[in-house]
Amino acid sequence: MGKIYVVGIGPGGPGDTTPRVEAALAASDVLVGYTTYIQLVRERYPEKEIVATPMTTEVERCRACRELALGGKTVSMVCSGDAGVYGMAGLVHQVCRDFPELEIQVLPGVTAATAGAALLGAPLVHDFAAVSLSDALTPWETIARRLLLAAEGDFVLCLYNPASKKRPNTLRQAAELLLRRRAPDTPCGLARRIGREGEESWLCTLGELGEQPADMFTTVFVGNSQTQVVNGRLVTPRGYEGKGTL
Amino acid sequence: MGKIYVVGIGPGGPGDTTPRVEAALAASDVLVGYTTYIQLVRERYPEKEIVATPMTTEVERCRACRELALGGKTVSMVCSGDAGVYGMAGLVHQVCRDFPELEIQVLPGVTAATAGAALLGAPLVHDFAAVSLSDALTPWETIARRLLLAAEGDFVLCLYNPASKKRPNTLRQAAELLLRRRAPDTPCGLARRIGREGEESWLCTLGELGEQPADMFTTVFVGNSQTQVVNGRLVTPRGYEGKGTL
Repeated sequence: MGKIYVVGIGPGGPGDTTPRVEAALAASDVLVGYTTYIQLVRERYPEKEIVATPMTTEVERCRACRELALGGKTVSMVCSGDAGVYGMAGLVHQVCRDFPELEIQVLPGVTAATAGAALLGAPLVHDFAAVSLSDALTPWETIARRLLLAAEGDFVLCLYNPASKKRPNTLRQAAELLLRRRAPDTPCGLARRIGREGEESWLCTLGELGEQPADMFTTVFVGNSQTQVVNGRLVTPRGYEGKGTL
Repeated sequence: MGKIYVVGIGPGGPGDTTPRVEAALAASDVLVGYTTYIQLVRERYPEKEIVATPMTTEVERCRACRELALGGKTVSMVCSGDAGVYGMAGLVHQVCRDFPELEIQVLPGVTAATAGAALLGAPLVHDFAAVSLSDALTPWETIARRLLLAAEGDFVLCLYNPASKKRPNTLRQAAELLLRRRAPDTPCGLARRIGREGEESWLCTLGELGEQPADMFTTVFVGNSQTQVVNGRLVTPRGYEGKGTL
């Protein structure tokens, strides 16, 4: 009986991959992953067997891990960011449901929420909600409802999958919903290709958010009612101002 | 003019600290941090100057960083987990507001939400909200309102700072609020001392959550309406079931 590691390699370069994840990759016979992400580790482990499958074949990818592990291999399911945030950690457990004897270990990584936040400053220092704008697996009504309730609760918002070629308008739709509950001058930020070639980040207001050029490699941050721009950085206060002079 | 790195060393051991953060620590003249967390890195960098300040002196700690950097030192503000999630990244920017020429770089780390999730299985695979139950800087009314709205939106919840010696009842109060919107058999999980000596994690139901022995080193997860227990792990489906047979 083999073993499945489900690992998040962080947003981009090897500098954001934890030593525990590197050790799991090094200890694996096979690295399995989405074609684009597996490229990020392939060159670091040229000797490993690689199973790369395209997007929309997630169930097959998890089954491949299961079969390899049942056959005695040590396998790493490689995800970008953190494997447990919109990653494969859940599906691997579901696909292996009938094999409780199979060892599955999820190893955490740096997710786009915290990596993007670090690039932009400190938007997530107070309570926040992560919402994926992809309606591939979730009805848009559920997404819209969550956006409105999170805005009503004055959560900072971190939006994953803000747009894609098939969904060029979802960020605009989300911004319009949020404008029902938040002021148009609410500070927002976008981070793109975090930790990879072409990394960029920039600020805008909620009123301008709908027109921003976001894609599948972009993570979007919408401030709460207290979020400020401090020397060009997006900063959400935690409340220390109330405790004395800053 | 020096530089300030604001770094998250991850939840516990060096295996969860990213290489970029290690490089920043190694490049720093001084390591500044909360007494408990700075111990975690002190032994790794015995030659560094250390400035350790106790809890509730966060503003002073950030000012110490600022003064050291203005004096030409390279300083790392050391946080546990990720520096931008209930960490010092925001306050450092605020305290340095009048010194725009001072270089501040936040480096992301593995936060307790994703590290605890990995220990428990995969609870955060779908939309989630992070809420701190500490009312030291946030009125309890705001916290309660956020819990109710997040529950209404069927977000998975990740609760930071669920209890402390001064606040032995906050997790019970939070559980009672959530029970107004979620079924008592909603699967929950707790992770304690993640990545450190004495690490433990366990599952319970929302009905049992209020009685769990949580402390400042515990992170709590409350499932959404779809979260399941799969072979002893807490798993939130992302929706692939609808796409074909698992």
